[in-house]
Amino acid sequence: MVSVASVQQLLTPAFTVDIQKVKSNARRMIERCQALGVQLRPHMKTHKTLECADIMTGGSRRCIVVSTLAEAHFYADHGFDDILYAYPLPFDKMGACADLAERLEMFHVLVDTEVALTELTKRRLRDGKSWLVWLKVDCNNGRAGVRPEDPTALILAKSIAECEGVELAGVYAHCGNSYSATGVKEIQAVAHNTIAATLQFVEKLEKAGVRCPRCSIGSTPSCSHPIPDMGRLNELHPGNYIFYDVQQMMIGSCQMDDIAVRVLTRVIGHYPHRNQLLVDCGWTGLSLHSLGMLPTGYALIDGHPELKLVGMTQEHGKIEPASGKLDFDKFPLGSLMSLIPYHACATAAMHPIYYVHSEGRIVAEWRPTRGW
Amino acid sequence: MVSVASVQQLLTPAFTVDIQKVKSNARRMIERCQALGVQLRPHMKTHKTLECADIMTGGSRRCIVVSTLAEAHFYADHGFDDILYAYPLPFDKMGACADLAERLEMFHVLVDTEVALTELTKRRLRDGKSWLVWLKVDCNNGRAGVRPEDPTALILAKSIAECEGVELAGVYAHCGNSYSATGVKEIQAVAHNTIAATLQFVEKLEKAGVRCPRCSIGSTPSCSHPIPDMGRLNELHPGNYIFYDVQQMMIGSCQMDDIAVRVLTRVIGHYPHRNQLLVDCGWTGLSLHSLGMLPTGYALIDGHPELKLVGMTQEHGKIEPASGKLDFDKFPLGSLMSLIPYHACATAAMHPIYYVHSEGRIVAEWRPTRGW
Repeated sequence: MVSVASVQQLLTPAFTVDIQKVKSNARRMIERCQALGVQLRPHMKTHKTLECADIMTGGSRRCIVVSTLAEAHFYADHGFDDILYAYPLPFDKMGACADLAERLEMFHVLVDTEVALTELTKRRLRDGKSWLVWLKVDCNNGRAGVRPEDPTALILAKSIAECEGVELAGVYAHCGNSYSATGVKEIQAVAHNTIAATLQFVEKLEKAGVRCPRCSIGSTPSCSHPIPDMGRLNELHPGNYIFYDVQQMMIGSCQMDDIAVRVLTRVIGHYPHRNQLLVDCGWTGLSLHSLGMLPTGYALIDGHPELKLVGMTQEHGKIEPASGKLDFDKFPLGSLMSLIPYHACATAAMHPIYYVHSEGRIVAEWRPTRGW
Repeated sequence: MVSVASVQQLLTPAFTVDIQKVKSNARRMIERCQALGVQLRPHMKTHKTLECADIMTGGSRRCIVVSTLAEAHFYADHGFDDILYAYPLPFDKMGACADLAERLEMFHVLVDTEVALTELTKRRLRDGKSWLVWLKVDCNNGRAGVRPEDPTALILAKSIAECEGVELAGVYAHCGNSYSATGVKEIQAVAHNTIAATLQFVEKLEKAGVRCPRCSIGSTPSCSHPIPDMGRLNELHPGNYIFYDVQQMMIGSCQMDDIAVRVLTRVIGHYPHRNQLLVDCGWTGLSLHSLGMLPTGYALIDGHPELKLVGMTQEHGKIEPASGKLDFDKFPLGSLMSLIPYHACATAAMHPIYYVHSEGRIVAEWRPTRGW
């Protein structure tokens, strides 16, 4: 069901998705993984839609990562399987996790503590099924995970492998530290270190007699510029690459032309006395994720590098020229502007509908899942 | 329909609303307006729920302000009337505005340009109805509105008053500049200046023979500490006061005890090597609106002034002590923590469900409207 024919007719603010760019971003990642000989397990957290998940999995509806239980349910309810809930096992959601594990062919969970493992053993799965458990390792990212060099990492892996009703499904690392890289060289250095640490740990496991069937690393920067070493892994799990954004462009993950999403907005006011115009997109339509720190403020304004989005309130954005006088005649009241988001995950999260277009013609409306 | 009995049983992250505090915040604002002899026209943008709107209007379902057309439709569809869409008239939504104006007893729109007025005249309302038009004035806030001292303000007010099919319903000012105040004195100085500028303008209108039936100013800081001058206005239109938040407390609008909302979160990881724990609330559950600049980071942690929320990713929050070693035994895996949001409007905007409690017992689930 599509309510309007073209992007120009959309009510604003509107989150738009260029389907050709999405398909091309998806295709390149699939091809990259094929060339490396690793399985792509795309992350759903950026978009949280069925349609994008179909494109990222090449229609298989198998082998995905999710960040919330809401996503896990949403995809499971729509025929997806082999779902990895890549989040430190949440004790308040054990019942729901067990249901999914019993209902799906493969529902994977992730732990980084003995306490979490104990929680799993308290809830044995029906029909002799085992919990599929990934060990989260922290290869210098500094968020969740055991450090692979920490002796407890090996002990925990052993516990998982030896625990009844539980199976060690793999080792999982997120190289989120690639987000502080700039340029391909630095990105690849982070990937190299993460892979080395992960593989050394897997080797250690093998030496200790612990079979680890899979190891997976991910992050859009690293997977956008793969290094040959990645071929030694089993899986890659990037997510943001399906949309990309200004942040990824600044890191060096993509080119401007790869960014598939925009927030469409309209001019709603001219204020010559302060050399500013207002648009109908505030933080409810864009998020504040750039912190206004881009040279162009809170976003890039497509086709207008001379403009700066200097302020955002709930439903208003303030735009002024980087320097000089604003030519208001160029931006009449009601005319459209197009904002390129700094962080696509955060901007998408603000929108209940994504307007999908092909060369400006609206071809679909996607509705993401939300909540937890 | 309530899915769990107590706050402690909620799956996290969860946005909780203390119904007693909401009612008390609402009651105080109603009483303040009664004492001043002005009409309260509460703003719905912070919560966007029917239940809160009922509380704020004392059950009348009349006389509200909204920030989006989606809110206008939501409230109109549920029996609310006398709705002011306090947003520079959006040309892409003229059809929908006309429908609402024809359908409701009173649907007010807002303009600050002759161009917008011309748009209104292009779409005459049925049955001899007039558009109810408020003139937005900018009393040093620097967002939308004509400056009352600008000669075009009087000209535009005259045009509205004289235009066929259109009626000047009032003059509307938002003293958003009260958000840069600190303490009651500064807040009241901003309110004083806004009121003076608004009333001087209304006087000017009267002298020019333009009848202006109402003038309204608003903002939670100013309306939380009313000054006698406010009695000379017709309406006040604050919104955030129904929840309040850390920002309002820091400005001086409220006390800690008035803040009605929390984000409930659970501990999901212990990382002694970096003196940090992880909780299951990231920016999808809190927003980034404090920019992490509070002495306690991205939020206050209820009952734990010694802790700091130092980092937020999509679904993870990082907490560490302000100084010294973290006593992890005090915060076992799975235990609850309660975050006091910096900006309640922004945090509420991230949640599809609000869990409403009375002394920890869940009494309702509220579902806000979203989108535009």
